[in-house]
Amino acid sequence: MSDLKPTKPLSGFVELLPTQQRCFDECAARMQKTLKTAGFSHLDLPAIERAEVLTDKDNWEEIETQMFLFQKGETKMGLRYDGTVGLARYVAGNINDLVFPFRAYQFARNYRGERPQRGRYREFYQMDLDILGINELSLAYDAEIVAVLSKAYESCADIIGKTYVKVGNRRFWNAMFEWLGLDEEQARTAFTLIDKKDKIGEEFPGALREKIGNLANEILRVFSDGYEEFSTKSANLMSAVEEINSFIATLNAAGIENATIDLAIMRGHAYYTGIVFEFFSESFPELGAIGGGGRYENLASKFSKTKIVGVGAAVGFSRLMVALLEDNKIDLAQFETPIDAAVLVMGESQLSFATGVCTELRKSEIVTTSYLDAYKKFKNQIEFADKIKAKFSIIIGEDEAKDKIVALKNMTTGTQEKLTTQEAIKRIKA
Amino acid sequence: MSDLKPTKPLSGFVELLPTQQRCFDECAARMQKTLKTAGFSHLDLPAIERAEVLTDKDNWEEIETQMFLFQKGETKMGLRYDGTVGLARYVAGNINDLVFPFRAYQFARNYRGERPQRGRYREFYQMDLDILGINELSLAYDAEIVAVLSKAYESCADIIGKTYVKVGNRRFWNAMFEWLGLDEEQARTAFTLIDKKDKIGEEFPGALREKIGNLANEILRVFSDGYEEFSTKSANLMSAVEEINSFIATLNAAGIENATIDLAIMRGHAYYTGIVFEFFSESFPELGAIGGGGRYENLASKFSKTKIVGVGAAVGFSRLMVALLEDNKIDLAQFETPIDAAVLVMGESQLSFATGVCTELRKSEIVTTSYLDAYKKFKNQIEFADKIKAKFSIIIGEDEAKDKIVALKNMTTGTQEKLTTQEAIKRIKA
Repeated sequence: MSDLKPTKPLSGFVELLPTQQRCFDECAARMQKTLKTAGFSHLDLPAIERAEVLTDKDNWEEIETQMFLFQKGETKMGLRYDGTVGLARYVAGNINDLVFPFRAYQFARNYRGERPQRGRYREFYQMDLDILGINELSLAYDAEIVAVLSKAYESCADIIGKTYVKVGNRRFWNAMFEWLGLDEEQARTAFTLIDKKDKIGEEFPGALREKIGNLANEILRVFSDGYEEFSTKSANLMSAVEEINSFIATLNAAGIENATIDLAIMRGHAYYTGIVFEFFSESFPELGAIGGGGRYENLASKFSKTKIVGVGAAVGFSRLMVALLEDNKIDLAQFETPIDAAVLVMGESQLSFATGVCTELRKSEIVTTSYLDAYKKFKNQIEFADKIKAKFSIIIGEDEAKDKIVALKNMTTGTQEKLTTQEAIKRIKA
Repeated sequence: MSDLKPTKPLSGFVELLPTQQRCFDECAARMQKTLKTAGFSHLDLPAIERAEVLTDKDNWEEIETQMFLFQKGETKMGLRYDGTVGLARYVAGNINDLVFPFRAYQFARNYRGERPQRGRYREFYQMDLDILGINELSLAYDAEIVAVLSKAYESCADIIGKTYVKVGNRRFWNAMFEWLGLDEEQARTAFTLIDKKDKIGEEFPGALREKIGNLANEILRVFSDGYEEFSTKSANLMSAVEEINSFIATLNAAGIENATIDLAIMRGHAYYTGIVFEFFSESFPELGAIGGGGRYENLASKFSKTKIVGVGAAVGFSRLMVALLEDNKIDLAQFETPIDAAVLVMGESQLSFATGVCTELRKSEIVTTSYLDAYKKFKNQIEFADKIKAKFSIIIGEDEAKDKIVALKNMTTGTQEKLTTQEAIKRIKA
């Protein structure tokens, strides 16, 4: 008979062991530090928004299958599914308190109410970064955001491996479709096919020809011969090609070497208008895009009459990290222990002295844990220090407490010496 | 006519401006660093748990008024309201992968579904710290957890002001009630009255006498003459007094000077069994307890047959920080800007050089933002640097880009000099 409740988290929710969590946290910290160093402000917005902010639809029952929703009194609300809706609301509401161009990042949990699949979680961390301008924003920021995000990934490269970024440009295609004289319907179809090009593979040329006839050849030439020769075809194409080239030049100047132009990158979202980009993992390309974004024209039109232009990116942080951890693609050795020193206490009467020693070690930023079950045998105590993989143990018995010294044991070499606390601190820090 | 959606967050949800957020983050980081330095592992558990994990009750409709709940397929689930349920589930589920005594902290959002009141949020950060043992855990950890939490608050004292901690002991009162010969009903009443002593004030003696007659005098003497003299009354009282005294001795040894024994501290929660404690803000005592905790006997009985003993504390982090921010009790000057250098670009042709300069500055960990709307007037550009309160601006015009130098302007003194990027880095870091 067992009335015990389940100990597993709900399906679609991530739970890490301490060693994995330290790895996760380290990557999260490095990425965020990169963004802060590039002048991005951290925004920590509520996870719950009004339903009307989350969606324009009011077919409540269908929305409920996709989101986590609830009603409190008259108010319908739900858990956010991305960082964009909150950002738009926040920026519109605080427009007079922010300085534009405004750089902001979020590192936050988002939620999807759908049935979970492998690699798709119901709760996941996403890092959003955006640069926003009022009415206008130089195209130079497009390269800036790709450069900053590239550096953010690079800051974790020794842990998560290398990444690369493919850059597309929607303005180029709009100019191209205009030059080809495609009607709206044809342009939409061509757009969709190009977006799916890598998935369709060999059938792409045929599918494109079927829809727009011989005009398809010009589009295919973009992929075979390159985009640059089209600059002579029209003023808009010239301007788009210049935009791409100046984007590349700026990226090179920023020292980014892992970017390539791939005009098949479209990113389905309707709101992108210019540059679009996607990041991939070199060691784990099967994951597909691990982050991406682009330029958009009017972020907050639902919240404000002021036009907010921007370029932004979203990083599927949980998606990447959990996949790497689950597939053992990360060497966790460096995260196995954070403990520099385990203080072991041989008897109750030495507790006070041992506590003082802990305080001194911690003041020197030595990560110090203590084993205070002083009635336990020495065997248990040293076993604890072993199990937590402490780099040093500090053994405090009757003699040590009396003489105000400690026995410092190097857990790797096994050597042991009697030292003052200050000498022990120096030894540990060495 | 306006179809614009509301830009305010839902009532009961906190949203900070960037400067406030930097202050919030800095305190959160310092507190967490203190815990890590004391060997606590970070746990980041799901915010959503099965309803049966969150509550033993099944009166769904009543629970729904207190929590955020939803149903997905057959499964009822909800947002957690504290860190304890998740911790109990996690530890029970991962018992063989953890080393005990296990030190863990959480810094996470919790949720209350009730109607929000001033100072009570629907979404709030709480920091939970716990030390857990299997079957047993030395009482010495009680002082350890108070010492560590005290240091955590102290790490932010220059921002949030000083704190102090009052320590009670439930074991003392159990021994006292036993010695007085109170029956169960009387003991419960006495417990409740002592718990409310500070609220009741002058009426406490009368209320107590009304319930337990002259035996009340002995309890009143604990508050007037001190607890120590009761150590001679019974073996259990002696053991409780010794526990208190050794607790204080250990705390003193840890260098904690802001702790006092106050046996009126009880902390309503049923699950505490020994030491209980509450932290208060010196500058903002009206807030009441800003953190607290105690010793408990069986954390995970709902999830495991293994007895998990522990001592823990919870810090109402949002509650404290938002109250301090709202009442302007924090000097935000130091958080006004994180920007060391604003790179201003005078013309499009200098964008590449400017981007390279940004990369070099950031590599040296100089927080650098750039104003890339190069077509804007210099007036707009320098206004931007002023508004974001950058410490330096770096002006890049045609001459600078040609000579590969920068004009570094100290925004406080107004002085300006032409330097190489490396010289500028040295000047900024100086």
